[in-house]
Amino acid sequence: MAVERIYLDWNATAPLMGAARDAMVEALAMPGNPSSVHAEGRAARALIEKARREVASLVGAEASHVTFTASATEAANQVLSPVYRMGKSRVSLGRLYVSAIEHPAVRAGGRFAAHQITEIPVTRLGVLDLDALSALLAAHDPADGLPLVAVMIVNNETGIVQPIRDVSAIVKKFGGLLVVDAVQAAGRLPIAIADLGADFLILSAHKLGGPKGVGALVSRGETLMPEPLVRGGGQEKGHRAGTENLAAIAGFGAAAREMAAGLVERNAHVSALRDRAEQAMLSVAPDTMIYGRGGTRVGNTSFFHLPGLKAETGQIAFDLEGVALSAGAACSSGKVGASHVLTAMGEDAATGALRLSIGPTTTEADIDRFVATFEKIAARRKPAGQAA
Amino acid sequence: MAVERIYLDWNATAPLMGAARDAMVEALAMPGNPSSVHAEGRAARALIEKARREVASLVGAEASHVTFTASATEAANQVLSPVYRMGKSRVSLGRLYVSAIEHPAVRAGGRFAAHQITEIPVTRLGVLDLDALSALLAAHDPADGLPLVAVMIVNNETGIVQPIRDVSAIVKKFGGLLVVDAVQAAGRLPIAIADLGADFLILSAHKLGGPKGVGALVSRGETLMPEPLVRGGGQEKGHRAGTENLAAIAGFGAAAREMAAGLVERNAHVSALRDRAEQAMLSVAPDTMIYGRGGTRVGNTSFFHLPGLKAETGQIAFDLEGVALSAGAACSSGKVGASHVLTAMGEDAATGALRLSIGPTTTEADIDRFVATFEKIAARRKPAGQAA
Repeated sequence: MAVERIYLDWNATAPLMGAARDAMVEALAMPGNPSSVHAEGRAARALIEKARREVASLVGAEASHVTFTASATEAANQVLSPVYRMGKSRVSLGRLYVSAIEHPAVRAGGRFAAHQITEIPVTRLGVLDLDALSALLAAHDPADGLPLVAVMIVNNETGIVQPIRDVSAIVKKFGGLLVVDAVQAAGRLPIAIADLGADFLILSAHKLGGPKGVGALVSRGETLMPEPLVRGGGQEKGHRAGTENLAAIAGFGAAAREMAAGLVERNAHVSALRDRAEQAMLSVAPDTMIYGRGGTRVGNTSFFHLPGLKAETGQIAFDLEGVALSAGAACSSGKVGASHVLTAMGEDAATGALRLSIGPTTTEADIDRFVATFEKIAARRKPAGQAA
Repeated sequence: MAVERIYLDWNATAPLMGAARDAMVEALAMPGNPSSVHAEGRAARALIEKARREVASLVGAEASHVTFTASATEAANQVLSPVYRMGKSRVSLGRLYVSAIEHPAVRAGGRFAAHQITEIPVTRLGVLDLDALSALLAAHDPADGLPLVAVMIVNNETGIVQPIRDVSAIVKKFGGLLVVDAVQAAGRLPIAIADLGADFLILSAHKLGGPKGVGALVSRGETLMPEPLVRGGGQEKGHRAGTENLAAIAGFGAAAREMAAGLVERNAHVSALRDRAEQAMLSVAPDTMIYGRGGTRVGNTSFFHLPGLKAETGQIAFDLEGVALSAGAACSSGKVGASHVLTAMGEDAATGALRLSIGPTTTEADIDRFVATFEKIAARRKPAGQAA
């Protein structure tokens, strides 16, 4: 008998929303290239500009400040550049500072060489160490060029929310530029680029109910922009060449529009389910370690460790029971390595942790199935210290 | 009364095939991230690997040598790199040689600086000048690193086929690497990477009936690969980071599979229609100039100039009559500039030319509509020398 599957891995990728799917199917039926000047081209162009307004609106930005990319990873590679342009002038950014818990797409440092990248530590609570950031920027040599700082709003593994406004105040004090990875925050927390004090935001469609294959780099202004990563035709005002991914962009717009409304109600629903799961886990196995529970977390994520159960083993056990959740991030082609996030928090990363991440269509029944499975797996784990 | 539209701009983008659309809709319903190890992730991964085999098969390559990108433009930016890797070793490519008629995605030169790029001239017939290529490579200074040569199979504006095997023989004689832009050739001409003597092929899905938003870099081997352009997670064996565009990749695979069969019959149909259009144009206006007609062209393209009619004006006139065709390439966000292809051929690029490009679902009735419109527009053109 086939087991009904429960999908609890929304931080890896969220199921596609109906509205996004419909927008995509409509776009797929349109024959034109958005760069063509004939009626078919203009219709495709109009769809892209509508989506641009919808995405901009989700993060309080101007539509003309949204550059569509193929992924948040591409947006990160574009914005993490040691060379910027201000009109015809070249502006050098001397050093990249990234938090130790950033996503690999940001940690890789884009076009900065490894020796130009400095890691900003986090506290044991998984929050960026603001004093360390201040000290690093105070020691920055402005002769090398401006400092570029990249920090995420919501960590993809723990769900912990970072103090972006405080980060921004420090970065601005030292004359730096701030790139904010909003991938796990957009649609889950209210975001306005100016309020955050960010110069750039990185977005991904597929984490908020849009399709895979499209992301965005959103800028606060348009005076100072990174050197393009993908060169060729003049698409995206010269910031990103290549025929636009019409259907995916349309889907991104639709998802952004949906997510811009009802955020409070959606969060209440999602947080209640996540809290219910966590209370049940602690009741079943009081030694369950839940990371970031004492601090500020996004409502949909629970990152937990059950002593005596290796994360990788746990993930397979849940999978066999029909429950999809992850051991760390899904960003390395199926390879499960030690979590750099746990390591940065000073935790023992060797046994790892499991991540439950849910969304608006997750139900109480899903959580009950998760809890029942958790109970079953917890019952057969080895005593602590003998992780299987 | 609304005019029924006729789409004759397949070289800008081809309408999505039914099989590609179906594959995409199926993929959009799948919740998983291809990098996740649970059942949902594995199902998504399987879809990608199936598409990889289908795309590889279209160009006689091994599936493991296909790297999916977001566009042919991205693939060009990836492969046109002055730094390659052979295992852990760094290999320098000293200079990039591109034909004067390459697509802007290739002409931009990827990660080569402008001073590292040399243009290879073409003859008045729009064919790469092989003697010039030999002379350029003979003068190449190997101390700078290997020469990298990039030449397209089929020109996107004229449809003229380039002598790739001859190009390859010359490039190999001088120890260079050959990148072949197969975007307008794949699905229209039989292609096998080894037969062509290419080291790399660049492909785009949306020019062959697949979706916009996905392309591929196909390599002959996997020993010597360009430094990744987009860094982050370990997707695509480390060659291209970012969550895979599952639906677009599935659509690309389906389109490649469809295009791999029935090529001869499809070409016969398409060529007959194109030839019918050209004969009618010459009959209506014998002074019509059709570029590349005396040489080897792909069967679906006609690039023509009607004396007394500026291309831009002509395109608008056709558009108003419900016929979508283009004036040059659709790669610069609606800007119609002088054609670099005509300039390279020594033609007067100022008045430009119009491009009719068709595909397997184009009908006789479409061509008749085109011809009737051509007749109408030709009748009202200004005398030669007074282009409107």
